[in-house]
Amino acid sequence: MSKNVFSFGGGTSDGDGKMKDTLGGKGAGLAEMCRAGLPVPPGFTIATHVCNIYFDNKKKIPAAIEKEVDAALAKLEQQFGKKLGDANDPMLLSVRSGAKFSMPGMMNTILNLGLNDVTTAGLAAKSGNERFAYDCYRRFIQMFGEVALEIEMEHFDHIFDARKAKAKVKSDADLTAIDLKAIIVDYKKLVKKETKKDFAEDPREQLSLAVGAVFGSWWNPKAGYYRKMEKIPDDIGTAANVQAMVFGNMGDTSATGVGFTRDPGSGEKVFYGEFLVNAQGEDVVAGIRTPLPINELRDVLPEAYDQLVEITTSLEKTYKDMQDFEFTIEDKKLYMLQTRNGKRTGPASVRIAVGMVEEGMITKSEAIMRVAPAQLDQLLHPVFDPKTIKELVKVTTGISASPGAAVGRAAFSSEDAVRLSAGGPVLLIRKETTPDDIHGMDVSKGILTAIGGKSSHAAVVARGMGRPCVVGAGEIRIDEKKQQFTAVVGGKEITVNEGEWVSLDGTTGEVFLGQAKTSSPDLTHDYIGKFMSWTDEFRGKFGVRANADIPRDAQVARQFGAEGIGLCRTEHMFFAEDRLPIVQKMILAKDEASRRAALDELLPHQRSDFAGLFTAMDGYPVVIRTLDPPLHEFLPKREELMVANAVLPFADAKKKKEISKDFNIPVKNLKKDLPALLHRVEELHEFNPMLGHRGCRLGVTYPEITEMQARAIFEAAAEVSKKGVKVLPEVMIPLIGSVEEFENQKAIVDRVAGEVFKKAKKKVHYMVGTMIEIPRAALTADRVAASAEFFSFGTNDLTQTTMGLSRDDYTKFQKEYETAKIFKADPFAVLDQEGVGKLVKFAVDAGRAARPTLEVGICGEHGGEPSSVQFCHKVGMDYVSCSPYRVPIARLAAAQGAIMAGGGGSDTNRTA
Amino acid sequence: MSKNVFSFGGGTSDGDGKMKDTLGGKGAGLAEMCRAGLPVPPGFTIATHVCNIYFDNKKKIPAAIEKEVDAALAKLEQQFGKKLGDANDPMLLSVRSGAKFSMPGMMNTILNLGLNDVTTAGLAAKSGNERFAYDCYRRFIQMFGEVALEIEMEHFDHIFDARKAKAKVKSDADLTAIDLKAIIVDYKKLVKKETKKDFAEDPREQLSLAVGAVFGSWWNPKAGYYRKMEKIPDDIGTAANVQAMVFGNMGDTSATGVGFTRDPGSGEKVFYGEFLVNAQGEDVVAGIRTPLPINELRDVLPEAYDQLVEITTSLEKTYKDMQDFEFTIEDKKLYMLQTRNGKRTGPASVRIAVGMVEEGMITKSEAIMRVAPAQLDQLLHPVFDPKTIKELVKVTTGISASPGAAVGRAAFSSEDAVRLSAGGPVLLIRKETTPDDIHGMDVSKGILTAIGGKSSHAAVVARGMGRPCVVGAGEIRIDEKKQQFTAVVGGKEITVNEGEWVSLDGTTGEVFLGQAKTSSPDLTHDYIGKFMSWTDEFRGKFGVRANADIPRDAQVARQFGAEGIGLCRTEHMFFAEDRLPIVQKMILAKDEASRRAALDELLPHQRSDFAGLFTAMDGYPVVIRTLDPPLHEFLPKREELMVANAVLPFADAKKKKEISKDFNIPVKNLKKDLPALLHRVEELHEFNPMLGHRGCRLGVTYPEITEMQARAIFEAAAEVSKKGVKVLPEVMIPLIGSVEEFENQKAIVDRVAGEVFKKAKKKVHYMVGTMIEIPRAALTADRVAASAEFFSFGTNDLTQTTMGLSRDDYTKFQKEYETAKIFKADPFAVLDQEGVGKLVKFAVDAGRAARPTLEVGICGEHGGEPSSVQFCHKVGMDYVSCSPYRVPIARLAAAQGAIMAGGGGSDTNRTA
Repeated sequence: MSKNVFSFGGGTSDGDGKMKDTLGGKGAGLAEMCRAGLPVPPGFTIATHVCNIYFDNKKKIPAAIEKEVDAALAKLEQQFGKKLGDANDPMLLSVRSGAKFSMPGMMNTILNLGLNDVTTAGLAAKSGNERFAYDCYRRFIQMFGEVALEIEMEHFDHIFDARKAKAKVKSDADLTAIDLKAIIVDYKKLVKKETKKDFAEDPREQLSLAVGAVFGSWWNPKAGYYRKMEKIPDDIGTAANVQAMVFGNMGDTSATGVGFTRDPGSGEKVFYGEFLVNAQGEDVVAGIRTPLPINELRDVLPEAYDQLVEITTSLEKTYKDMQDFEFTIEDKKLYMLQTRNGKRTGPASVRIAVGMVEEGMITKSEAIMRVAPAQLDQLLHPVFDPKTIKELVKVTTGISASPGAAVGRAAFSSEDAVRLSAGGPVLLIRKETTPDDIHGMDVSKGILTAIGGKSSHAAVVARGMGRPCVVGAGEIRIDEKKQQFTAVVGGKEITVNEGEWVSLDGTTGEVFLGQAKTSSPDLTHDYIGKFMSWTDEFRGKFGVRANADIPRDAQVARQFGAEGIGLCRTEHMFFAEDRLPIVQKMILAKDEASRRAALDELLPHQRSDFAGLFTAMDGYPVVIRTLDPPLHEFLPKREELMVANAVLPFADAKKKKEISKDFNIPVKNLKKDLPALLHRVEELHEFNPMLGHRGCRLGVTYPEITEMQARAIFEAAAEVSKKGVKVLPEVMIPLIGSVEEFENQKAIVDRVAGEVFKKAKKKVHYMVGTMIEIPRAALTADRVAASAEFFSFGTNDLTQTTMGLSRDDYTKFQKEYETAKIFKADPFAVLDQEGVGKLVKFAVDAGRAARPTLEVGICGEHGGEPSSVQFCHKVGMDYVSCSPYRVPIARLAAAQGAIMAGGGGSDTNRTA
Repeated sequence: MSKNVFSFGGGTSDGDGKMKDTLGGKGAGLAEMCRAGLPVPPGFTIATHVCNIYFDNKKKIPAAIEKEVDAALAKLEQQFGKKLGDANDPMLLSVRSGAKFSMPGMMNTILNLGLNDVTTAGLAAKSGNERFAYDCYRRFIQMFGEVALEIEMEHFDHIFDARKAKAKVKSDADLTAIDLKAIIVDYKKLVKKETKKDFAEDPREQLSLAVGAVFGSWWNPKAGYYRKMEKIPDDIGTAANVQAMVFGNMGDTSATGVGFTRDPGSGEKVFYGEFLVNAQGEDVVAGIRTPLPINELRDVLPEAYDQLVEITTSLEKTYKDMQDFEFTIEDKKLYMLQTRNGKRTGPASVRIAVGMVEEGMITKSEAIMRVAPAQLDQLLHPVFDPKTIKELVKVTTGISASPGAAVGRAAFSSEDAVRLSAGGPVLLIRKETTPDDIHGMDVSKGILTAIGGKSSHAAVVARGMGRPCVVGAGEIRIDEKKQQFTAVVGGKEITVNEGEWVSLDGTTGEVFLGQAKTSSPDLTHDYIGKFMSWTDEFRGKFGVRANADIPRDAQVARQFGAEGIGLCRTEHMFFAEDRLPIVQKMILAKDEASRRAALDELLPHQRSDFAGLFTAMDGYPVVIRTLDPPLHEFLPKREELMVANAVLPFADAKKKKEISKDFNIPVKNLKKDLPALLHRVEELHEFNPMLGHRGCRLGVTYPEITEMQARAIFEAAAEVSKKGVKVLPEVMIPLIGSVEEFENQKAIVDRVAGEVFKKAKKKVHYMVGTMIEIPRAALTADRVAASAEFFSFGTNDLTQTTMGLSRDDYTKFQKEYETAKIFKADPFAVLDQEGVGKLVKFAVDAGRAARPTLEVGICGEHGGEPSSVQFCHKVGMDYVSCSPYRVPIARLAAAQGAIMAGGGGSDTNRTA
């Protein structure tokens, strides 16, 4: 039989820091700290696989394992020098969860285990602090009752609050030992009433129940939700860590705290954390009392502080990463309770990685691998536009807990946040958050709490999610029931109700009323530039382009490091207010001549757009896609026209005016023009527009459209080229299903290019290629590549067609599909490598076999999603293209892909 | 230089019967007949490749080839013993087209070439028949003018009719030589006026122009249309056959005719054909005079008749196929002008093939390969229901020209037929048809003409097309201008206008007023059963199933030889009048409980349907697909509801009643229920329903639907199985994209099966498999096959998704795509082997690799299309499934596929 229980303590341990699979993160950390000779209260870890055994065994720990626990307990008692259940000097235990991956606050913890009427009396006598002992006891009954016996917390709160009222005290700390004893009596009655059994006085029985409760919490709904969100497997289970209790709440020479070896918000190399004197650890983490900055510990308990700094600095060196640690000081003696690689914001992630490279702790490739692309995203969050923010009323300044600016409508519960988020951005505003709020935080743009510090639940989770967050905003009063908060501004009380706009700055802690404008993030920090330059070095020739339709976006894209435009959607130019009427005229044209006349009107607009794009991308390629959407998208909706047309005979003057405005038809012409417009829209109506008359199919049926667009492209290219701009146009034909379609369109493009260049007396090198977005194009890629000079995978549509899944309609059953675990991820966010990816790989290989110089890229939204970017690198694409704001993420993901493939830059020069 | 001109005559020839590529069908036949020593007027063939040279050379025959023509002409003159342009005894020539594949009437012919003022006088003197000579001359000028000089026929007709009027004669035959001379004078004036040149009197110049005109006719629009219809390549060109003229119009000992060695309508082994005394060949073929049956020739010219029978019988033996021949008797001397494998109806095709096997002329596999699957289709045309046809008024009985019953609305021109055919079935009714009517005949269900015989254009083309056809219905008067025909029935004149229903029986020649009911064709003929049994022998294990949704269809399918049901679409059961309200109740249900209640109501209906199917298919498998279409298909249309809802506030009582009726909502409830219904329909609305919430996605979100269907299947199976019926249910899950979806649904099916069998105390063997109709399913076929026991390719949807092409919207640009030659065939009719086929093959291979016993079939409409069936055989499917009426076609196509693959039955036993 394999080992199930692993002891640690007294400078040795059964396990070590590498055994996270078996011991979980916390258990491995404790084992490692023990081995390193650090002051860790002794204990033992029941392995993660026992969690599965527990569930397979009808939620019982098998007797054989209980025997191993007995043995470990005996060893622990021997090392700690106290015994569980000792009437005079009882050892108390903590029982904590600890999975391989950190899941802060998601699972159960039980503290002060081992107390009963007898041992509590002993503890009181031994500590000389009766109040402390009975406070521990009532905490234990409450926690054990909730967690192991599943009694609703509110029942305990009710008893506790009733006693406080009776004793006429406001603070918990003001309750006397007598009050606490009375509470304990009532608690026990509650337990009897709810469980039909007496409270378990036997400490060993308490232990078994507590371990079971910890395992049981693996399948908490909130833990399941967190795992899904963080993509943690369901079947790895949690360990249970049983450890001798030390007490930070034994008076003013005791304290407890948490900290980081560097600032997890900024990444700055400063000792960072919080502590509370005379408190137990849960008080700090739960955010109930607002703790003090850790550097103040130096004044309170200087020796313990120095030892803490020394230990944690050494831990960071051992683990080569920023440590997140917990400690308790029991009567001046420091105990380390936990250490782990700390969670951090995106900026901190980058800054720490860069710092550690510069300090010689890690290599550049390690630094690159250490920053999750999603974290980099946080650097790219918009900040408030400094001008407009000044015009808003500042309500308060809280504690900045997760950086970035967020704007949204106020929601006062997670349920409300979910509901409101369907209609637009939401801010979640809570007194404090609990793990039950995960789903509300997930849908919110930002989080604001009234209490709690930088280590509070809200702060930790928000940073992990990359959501801007302000905590401890104590000046506002939140009434969650009334769904409002009040604040005093300039001497006046103002009330903010559900649905009103609020803006918050997670970097400064400021909270404003109203809807602030945001502007582009600042990527000019030295360390960011350095980090990004390393990613470029490692990704090598693998390019990153941006999808941009207008010159302004192209400029932003360049700033983010885009090396060209991978997709310019010309129809976005068609939708501009001054152009749409011309486009409509073109569509409604009765013959080719009048269609051409309308196209002639459009030509100069398109030309000047292209000139702008070429200029912004001087020296870089610009891929321009010819018109893609079905023409009816440019006209009013069919059903709206049908309704207006049906109502018209009954319409009074007001209604007629309304209809006239809706469809831009003068009232006097309505009777004639409305049915005519409806008729044309009916002609264009499609049952499945996604699979309809669009893409190159438009170009085949209306060659004059392709012709106009090609003319605009080449006239612009010739024009700016004459001004010295280096122009690299790539004309992309969309929705190709066969090489015949491609050749039909290419012939037009080539002919027009020849005509334009001849007239302009200027030749510009260009390519004609195609989007691969229909399975048939991928399947016949060899033939297509014989004619096409480049491929760009349009994975949005390729996903729709390959999976037979309409992106617009998929949401109707997406939830059920996720619940049934049919799709591991949203296939429109993360490229489906098994299905769609197989086609992509096939097409790349077949295309390159037919034309070795074939340029291959991706321009679907997957081009900015890290795992998809790495897939594109793996199958040998030349570049990815994504939205400008995702360019840095793609650069990083590409570098990571290159490193994983064993290629990329050099680690020989460890510092920049 | 390769040889361009091939002489034949006098018992020898440069070419032979195998050289169809070079000489065309007619030229090869003439060469072969000469070699066989048959009496053929000598001549020469200008090769098919010269046609392309002619077009490449700006429509001129190169001088070098003209020299070859000179040489061949000299040889011909020598053989025939007369000279072209001889003033005393001129040789006349025919110049005819002749491509590799027969294209009857599609291209040009010029007869009597070589006549001019001088030679006509010589011909008159030599023949002693002035009228004959000048009739030839005027015919020549007219034909040459039309064909070589492109002068409108009506100008000639105008002159001719004017002279007839002046001469006060009704029949052409009554015109005297003087009349004809006058006509010739006017004809020449016309030529001068239209071409600004004198009529070419030089016979050699006439010859060059005529050969050019024959080549030029290759690109006639009607020839192009015919090639497209018959899938004849554009680039093979036509030969030009120049042959000495012999005259069937030299008096009463001369005749001309056409014939077949067997009846091309029935396949019966009888000498079959028609002739006219004192006529030129064109008179017979053009259907202007109604000819006599060929057996009457025995009485008129017995020696020539006997020689004709002997020669054609021997030709049939030589070519091992029924011959279609042309002959002319010039003053009792028989000349063979043409022989070729004759076109025939479907039934004739089968009967001839079977007959020839029985006569030991061909093998069984040859017989199978000789019947085109499309011809077999003609056997399957419905016939009139004998009861209902009695109630219709019979207008007339014409000549039965192409078998089968047809019902449609009357159209009196090809243009009208095309227009009307958009709205439903059409019959084309013409005095006579010409090659210009091809497109009209193509869109019509049947053809009726007033004049012409079994060899008329209408008859020949209709048989080739498999369209029922009645010709020579002389009792009706057709007024094409007024778009009506009149007939006298029971002494009363009745008028039938455009758009009125007419029914005709191409087998009996009967024509009825009104819309007859049709019933299944009779496949009980001995020779059909024999032939089909041979196909079964050769296709071996490759199965043919039918798509059938209701027991009645299943019975029809069995009669046609279906070996099971390959697709039962359960939703077709849902649409039945008595069930739709229950289905709607199910969809509108507010919760699972009421949805289940509605499903419980549906259960007995489904169960009894399945019981019927199982019983009809006793011993054969029945593949039942679970619910496939999106639920909104069962509800009223969204836009109609929107309009009704918008109009409701203004509606008067009448309008309200209308709305109430439209949506089946009582008037008093409209205000409440109409918006509610609209709301639900809005909820279900999809942008791309084809890619939406349908197929297995319904089963995943509403497992209770799958559950009900599975219950109905297994309860029915257990029930009829107890009665001794052998039941082989195969439950098919539609629209699978991933194995996870499949397993989700399979679990439900298996669970329900277990429950039902336990309760019924009866186990039935069943399979659970899936439709492969989404590219992703094909791409992951290995994983899907690990769980699925069978695949059935749903190539309708697989074509839509693989090509990104909506079947419903494709028609909007289908024409342009065909014109631009982007698709070679309609991909929804003929499987796109290059694209979709690649996926199919991949999935078959991957599926079989994962599960060697995997059953694989096809149930898309391609399952009844011959080339697609052969593809399915080639990639190793187990069966195809198609509509019941196409089962015999699929059986034949499968056998042909097996023979082409070198497998199948045995040819050792030549007769059955």
